[in-house]
Amino acid sequence: MADAEAKERRILVAVDEGEESMYALSWCLKNLICESSKDTLILLYVKPPRVVYTALDGTGYMFSSDIITTMEKYSNDVAGCVIEKAKTLCRDLQNVKVETKVEHGDPRDVICEMTGKLGADMLVMGSHGYGLIKRAFLGSVSNHCAQNASCPVLIVKRPKSTAGSN
Amino acid sequence: MADAEAKERRILVAVDEGEESMYALSWCLKNLICESSKDTLILLYVKPPRVVYTALDGTGYMFSSDIITTMEKYSNDVAGCVIEKAKTLCRDLQNVKVETKVEHGDPRDVICEMTGKLGADMLVMGSHGYGLIKRAFLGSVSNHCAQNASCPVLIVKRPKSTAGSN
Repeated sequence: MADAEAKERRILVAVDEGEESMYALSWCLKNLICESSKDTLILLYVKPPRVVYTALDGTGYMFSSDIITTMEKYSNDVAGCVIEKAKTLCRDLQNVKVETKVEHGDPRDVICEMTGKLGADMLVMGSHGYGLIKRAFLGSVSNHCAQNASCPVLIVKRPKSTAGSN
Repeated sequence: MADAEAKERRILVAVDEGEESMYALSWCLKNLICESSKDTLILLYVKPPRVVYTALDGTGYMFSSDIITTMEKYSNDVAGCVIEKAKTLCRDLQNVKVETKVEHGDPRDVICEMTGKLGADMLVMGSHGYGLIKRAFLGSVSNHCAQNASCPVLIVKRPKSTAGSN
């Protein structure tokens, strides 16, 4: 398109604590973002719902409020850490606006919902999505989003050759 | 990336007879392709394998060679028609090189194989992929490609609001 560079695209990148989502973000920065465009990059992290913590407790006992507070703090720390890491990857962007968003809930639903709410033109995510433990409970996030997001979804799989590098 | 516009990207678009793949191609032209870049767009159509024709015959009889010849001709006509339609959508591109490729086999395997063979940087496809009849036999092509292609995969779902427009 002749006007592709003038178009403002809103690109939503779903990040999590896995290396694959950071690879997806890097790939996006290298291959999709044009400095000359007016793109807005939105970094989204979804904190897991409490039901996941409960499910981890196989004993049938309820967690005490102390443990829940500790896990909430841990969850917030992870969110902060992931968002910081993602922002660091974006630090060299000059004309691109970078926004961050931390939400709470089932990542499959939240990510799809946010594509609509944030008016995203494209969603970028890793193919595994949302960590090994959460994936075991929640299934493939990327497959779900590809079918249910309100915009096109770019699924970035980390090449095997770099899978062990960090 | 500062050098994004100088980078030559090879974008493979899997097209079929469904409207969704043409929507995916149009979306790609509007949102991904920069006229100022040195992108190469490769339009790929995969003809169904003969086993699909055989599977359509529920009577247990072998098809006569006449029928097979007729179906082959039909398949070639469809391929030509799809590629022509896709090329028409690309006719306004001036600096982007457009290549076409017609292959034969299970689209899931062929598309993934071609991402590697053609050195694609990105694969673009509709979310349904490869027609209603073939999907019934072959399953979701886009899910398979997202997991197995050698490059990132952009899955474009046709918005519901335009689904009945042509």
